[in-house]
Amino acid sequence: MTNWPRFNLASGPVDVTVETLRSMQRPVLYHYDPAFVEVFAHTTGLLKQVFNTGYDVVIMQAEAILGLEGAVASLVSPGDKVLNVVSGVFGKGMEDFILKYGGDPVELAVPYNAAVDPEDVRRVLRAIPGIKYLTVVHSETPSGTVNPVREICGIAREFGVISIVDTVSGLGSELLSPEDWSMDVAVAGPQKCLGGTPGLSLISVSPQAWVAMEERAEPLRGSFLSLLDWKTTWIEQQRFPHTPSVTEIYALESVLEQALREGMESLTGRHQACARAARAAVLALGMALWPESEAIATACCTAVNVPDGVTDREVIDTLRSRYGIMIAGGYGDLAGKLIRLGHMGQAAHPALVVAQIGMLERTLIDLGLEITPGAGVGAAIVAFQGWDDSTRTYPHTG
Amino acid sequence: MTNWPRFNLASGPVDVTVETLRSMQRPVLYHYDPAFVEVFAHTTGLLKQVFNTGYDVVIMQAEAILGLEGAVASLVSPGDKVLNVVSGVFGKGMEDFILKYGGDPVELAVPYNAAVDPEDVRRVLRAIPGIKYLTVVHSETPSGTVNPVREICGIAREFGVISIVDTVSGLGSELLSPEDWSMDVAVAGPQKCLGGTPGLSLISVSPQAWVAMEERAEPLRGSFLSLLDWKTTWIEQQRFPHTPSVTEIYALESVLEQALREGMESLTGRHQACARAARAAVLALGMALWPESEAIATACCTAVNVPDGVTDREVIDTLRSRYGIMIAGGYGDLAGKLIRLGHMGQAAHPALVVAQIGMLERTLIDLGLEITPGAGVGAAIVAFQGWDDSTRTYPHTG
Amino acid sequence: MTNWPRFNLASGPVDVTVETLRSMQRPVLYHYDPAFVEVFAHTTGLLKQVFNTGYDVVIMQAEAILGLEGAVASLVSPGDKVLNVVSGVFGKGMEDFILKYGGDPVELAVPYNAAVDPEDVRRVLRAIPGIKYLTVVHSETPSGTVNPVREICGIAREFGVISIVDTVSGLGSELLSPEDWSMDVAVAGPQKCLGGTPGLSLISVSPQAWVAMEERAEPLRGSFLSLLDWKTTWIEQQRFPHTPSVTEIYALESVLEQALREGMESLTGRHQACARAARAAVLALGMALWPESEAIATACCTAVNVPDGVTDREVIDTLRSRYGIMIAGGYGDLAGKLIRLGHMGQAAHPALVVAQIGMLERTLIDLGLEITPGAGVGAAIVAFQGWDDSTRTYPHTG
Amino acid sequence: MTNWPRFNLASGPVDVTVETLRSMQRPVLYHYDPAFVEVFAHTTGLLKQVFNTGYDVVIMQAEAILGLEGAVASLVSPGDKVLNVVSGVFGKGMEDFILKYGGDPVELAVPYNAAVDPEDVRRVLRAIPGIKYLTVVHSETPSGTVNPVREICGIAREFGVISIVDTVSGLGSELLSPEDWSMDVAVAGPQKCLGGTPGLSLISVSPQAWVAMEERAEPLRGSFLSLLDWKTTWIEQQRFPHTPSVTEIYALESVLEQALREGMESLTGRHQACARAARAAVLALGMALWPESEAIATACCTAVNVPDGVTDREVIDTLRSRYGIMIAGGYGDLAGKLIRLGHMGQAAHPALVVAQIGMLERTLIDLGLEITPGAGVGAAIVAFQGWDDSTRTYPHTG
Repeated sequence: MTNWPRFNLASGPVDVTVETLRSMQRPVLYHYDPAFVEVFAHTTGLLKQVFNTGYDVVIMQAEAILGLEGAVASLVSPGDKVLNVVSGVFGKGMEDFILKYGGDPVELAVPYNAAVDPEDVRRVLRAIPGIKYLTVVHSETPSGTVNPVREICGIAREFGVISIVDTVSGLGSELLSPEDWSMDVAVAGPQKCLGGTPGLSLISVSPQAWVAMEERAEPLRGSFLSLLDWKTTWIEQQRFPHTPSVTEIYALESVLEQALREGMESLTGRHQACARAARAAVLALGMALWPESEAIATACCTAVNVPDGVTDREVIDTLRSRYGIMIAGGYGDLAGKLIRLGHMGQAAHPALVVAQIGMLERTLIDLGLEITPGAGVGAAIVAFQGWDDSTRTYPHTG
Repeated sequence: MTNWPRFNLASGPVDVTVETLRSMQRPVLYHYDPAFVEVFAHTTGLLKQVFNTGYDVVIMQAEAILGLEGAVASLVSPGDKVLNVVSGVFGKGMEDFILKYGGDPVELAVPYNAAVDPEDVRRVLRAIPGIKYLTVVHSETPSGTVNPVREICGIAREFGVISIVDTVSGLGSELLSPEDWSMDVAVAGPQKCLGGTPGLSLISVSPQAWVAMEERAEPLRGSFLSLLDWKTTWIEQQRFPHTPSVTEIYALESVLEQALREGMESLTGRHQACARAARAAVLALGMALWPESEAIATACCTAVNVPDGVTDREVIDTLRSRYGIMIAGGYGDLAGKLIRLGHMGQAAHPALVVAQIGMLERTLIDLGLEITPGAGVGAAIVAFQGWDDSTRTYPHTG
Repeated sequence: MTNWPRFNLASGPVDVTVETLRSMQRPVLYHYDPAFVEVFAHTTGLLKQVFNTGYDVVIMQAEAILGLEGAVASLVSPGDKVLNVVSGVFGKGMEDFILKYGGDPVELAVPYNAAVDPEDVRRVLRAIPGIKYLTVVHSETPSGTVNPVREICGIAREFGVISIVDTVSGLGSELLSPEDWSMDVAVAGPQKCLGGTPGLSLISVSPQAWVAMEERAEPLRGSFLSLLDWKTTWIEQQRFPHTPSVTEIYALESVLEQALREGMESLTGRHQACARAARAAVLALGMALWPESEAIATACCTAVNVPDGVTDREVIDTLRSRYGIMIAGGYGDLAGKLIRLGHMGQAAHPALVVAQIGMLERTLIDLGLEITPGAGVGAAIVAFQGWDDSTRTYPHTG
Repeated sequence: MTNWPRFNLASGPVDVTVETLRSMQRPVLYHYDPAFVEVFAHTTGLLKQVFNTGYDVVIMQAEAILGLEGAVASLVSPGDKVLNVVSGVFGKGMEDFILKYGGDPVELAVPYNAAVDPEDVRRVLRAIPGIKYLTVVHSETPSGTVNPVREICGIAREFGVISIVDTVSGLGSELLSPEDWSMDVAVAGPQKCLGGTPGLSLISVSPQAWVAMEERAEPLRGSFLSLLDWKTTWIEQQRFPHTPSVTEIYALESVLEQALREGMESLTGRHQACARAARAAVLALGMALWPESEAIATACCTAVNVPDGVTDREVIDTLRSRYGIMIAGGYGDLAGKLIRLGHMGQAAHPALVVAQIGMLERTLIDLGLEITPGAGVGAAIVAFQGWDDSTRTYPHTG
């Protein structure tokens, strides 16, 4: 049997806290047990706070890809024109959903190491009439980049366009609010910066989005993909459209409690500080970041070009087999081009960043690269100047 | 805060064993960590054994309703004629899926306290040409009944009709095998007789069913509902179509190991013996079973008519609030008509049956009914003659 | 490998709640980690509330036998006269400790199915001068009896005699307070009515007892048996005399929180109601109680004479192997004479009493005894009239 | 409430593995349940393997200090001459036990940063007639040093002297065997290199030691301190002298299984490699080791002189509060003089050593010391050359 890793520092699912694990030890309740209805209602309330929203929230009962497909399936009718903003593998993937549900995709794309310029969105919306929806990825985990979703969705709203935002790994990497950011449907995941388990989709829905779903010729109802089903059952009657994943809900309740106890400002600040330290370390080791600038690097993982002389698999496999550290590589079109250092959830901490960089250094030496042992870690240590767990103070740039 | 129940004896999700809870304490792995790929492969292998099948099996990543909708969505094309065999709420519900995916449903229905006669299936298949699929529920949990699925699917196969079987609560209540029973797509749940957590769909797929999916004009691919996606990723390449629910897989692995350690013959025998004892107890208390005969009563729960003079809610709520026992009531069209005693998973044990009947007696007395205290339990105790945990010997009818 | 039991209904250690198990999942801390010092201080504070005392409390780091030996070792000097009040195996056992530490024991004994009359204590204290200590067992678990400790210790105090009380299974079976009951050193266990794990001794110490320990010619210090070591380290300096059992402390903190959330009055009322129902069931089955009267029966377990025609081992082993119920038998001089039904901790609940009596009935029938199936359970059900988990109302006698 | 640390890297108790935590989730059994007797017997068997011994082993039911006091109490009679070999705080502490039980201690001491020369032991044994016992600490955790116990005990045996060895933190830091090392009573702890929980004493006893206990004028029996009680109950009759700490035994069973799965040679090699890397890091940072030479440094923790310009509390508290790393300081006479880096149990891994050194560097900079960021980590990385988790290959010195 393969050894288990010492630390799961991949880009999701990530290792969860002991508190989260303990929450899952609660007995499995019948979903209509009054105690479970209470837990579910409590969890929904916590999710609103974590999303910082007054919008309705929906917890769909499978990993966030369900929420993304469900959002498209619930909104897009045959013939609807959809502006798909693409800056990476996940953004590109939205096109498949749009096509599957009969939509007519209009693509605005940039290279996968770049971010979209909001002004280009405005230009397209001006140029092409009749666009009804806009789809965009906030934090493009495979590329390690972020898009300026706040500006993009603001522009969409100006044009009366309903936005669908993949913020699966975005929630927790930046302070956000669906209202302030004009996001109509925002789909997040518990298993990224929140550090939870991967079996649920966390979704906020604006009133405009509900209207759009309800006003379709044939609203999507009676399906596992339906967002409306949750409106007419849970939101309106505290009933369930189908059996929820009881233990995943326990985990989510705990994960949200932990996030709120920490505070979303601290939580995002912690991720950003770790990302900055990881970038400093990588650069100090003479490696190059995959994103074209640090300004568009996501806080949830750090994408690094594979150094000359080694392959991504060599780095990843050596790190995993010799030193028990699991990190992720490139994905889809990016396979082989990059490795990704992870700092999500409880891994967003100096001890884990330092451990990871240290083991990466050891690995690169094992693979014959010439680096100065300690150089990366040293840069990270400098970058962590000002960190304080006890006061939740994290270093930030001027 | 509402007290949690002492025992969850509902009809699913049910309480899980401590061994299952412990299995979920394993650290959350990245899904492409070699250790997780190993766990997933191991779990798939165990599932084949539990299903007693050489067919491919698929573990879809949400509660069994996903598997049912996915099976219909993956198979049924617009215009396909589908014989929907209905003996209860769940059977009736299949019609919605058939319609949603463009199928043309033909209904063969019996009252919700009865089972379908296989010869009626044969008659319909003879009478109506061009039927491509048959949908049927094995164990109709809401009614506490079973259909003779083995015979029904055998007849379907004679006619070249592909069967889709909801055996969500059937797996574990009867010894079955997709091959022997001619079931093309069989969808089971971990949270019923196997006593697991509710977040996954367990599906066996016959070669004919794969062919039918692949030969559609537009095979369903790239969707959370797609069975084919699992064939082309996991089955053929040991990759995942999307992020699996890691912790649910841990639980499933453990649940399947426990089932196989016990043996499926023992597991089903244990459920059947408990169901017989529960029925004996109910009859001894002067109450009536909902199923029209004991012969068609399911082994997973015992549906009982609500006694005169009380309502289902009074019984259920008193049992829950005063004595900490959660049981289920009627569902959909059956609401208010019946209560359901639960004996699934670890609740399929004399100690729990006796505790449940005892607390039910106490409740009925509280509600003013005249029953002889101990009469129901006494009948159950007699029915348990021959039970032996240590040798896994369970009483059965001559 | 032997199957594990479905329910541990022995007379301690007993099964613990899931909440207690979960509490033990917390990471093991260094004992001088500020977070652990906080947990330990919190736990000590909770213990004072559970003991309902303003006296100092000490948590010695091993099962309650350590607390008992430690109390004697810390107090008794060579030549000290000690009145040992004996009504059972545990009371008799105190003599060994008294002798080991040089004490001069004076015995006041009654048969092991009886309780001591306080007036006899007074008579002895009057008759024999120079008695310095009195040792007495509150709840004699092996006999299923209780002594009137409140009266006995009150008399001891009148005579200036320091009392050492074994209330290992007494705490939680009766509402008590060291001050009101005049108990100088009271030793309790978490693994009885509190339903916790067995690795700790819970001790309250009166100021008089501290003085007696300190004024000895050679106070006991620097030993695992020393109570004084805890006074000079933890109580006075928040330091530890040796490494505490970190995880046991986590469990204890949780157990005490649960007890206080329930309320000690509810907790003891719950135990007493279950004991009454168990006795009613036993009598209805034609069996005899071991205690000479119900008035002196303990609330923590019900000792029953082994019925004619069977042996204690046959009953215990059949119940355990066939039905997964573990109960205890007689102990020491009582071996073979009795069996003990358990209703401690979470087992003090109608569902468990009924399950246990039901399985006992089944067992007795298996062993060839003629009993009416359901007769015992029926009597228990009647006795539970008035029980309500939701309001924590428990039936009690006039 | 104080934040919990991210990593407990103290010198015991240390953080335990998730597998160990999960083992403690098993239901609490009655100690005479056949399943528990089986677990206890299994655990005893595993302990023999971990100790690499054919001697009897005893698991006393409290932290290892009980085993040490119990060994002295069980062996030493009033007037017995005991050679106490002292090289640190724990060694010095043995004198108190010797005196308490009436022994006549003869001290052979070296400074607390040194190890004892076996030839000095021989000299004393030759010079002073009538020495019956020798007490010695193998791994002096407070000083971070080891004594050459194999040689010392070999010499004791030549002289017919019974040895009592505190190898609480020694088991797991060096490959040992009571027979080969001539240790008569060896007391180990689960909470050090084995990485377990702290509530038990693990003891191996030679036949000579049993004879010595039994041949005392008044053998110690009927006490929590008695080793003989375990011989006459568990070893001879598979009964218990008192209620064992059930959950601690579950943890120990798991801890021993993990150790044997890894192999004691790997386990000790892993600790030694981490200790070497920690020492290299410390020296690279310009700090000095407390032990007078690396040759006598223990593998379980690395004692480091407090650098000029800071206090031990400043280092420990900053590391703990800002970076969530808990390490230990000096103890007793060594308080204020040193800090101890921890690498026991699962912390004996490059990722944790690097994380710890990195956070220490950060802390020293915070406190105003001038060090080169990354210098310590770099040295550790170099020292870890050759490490491979997958093959359990660990770097060692030529």
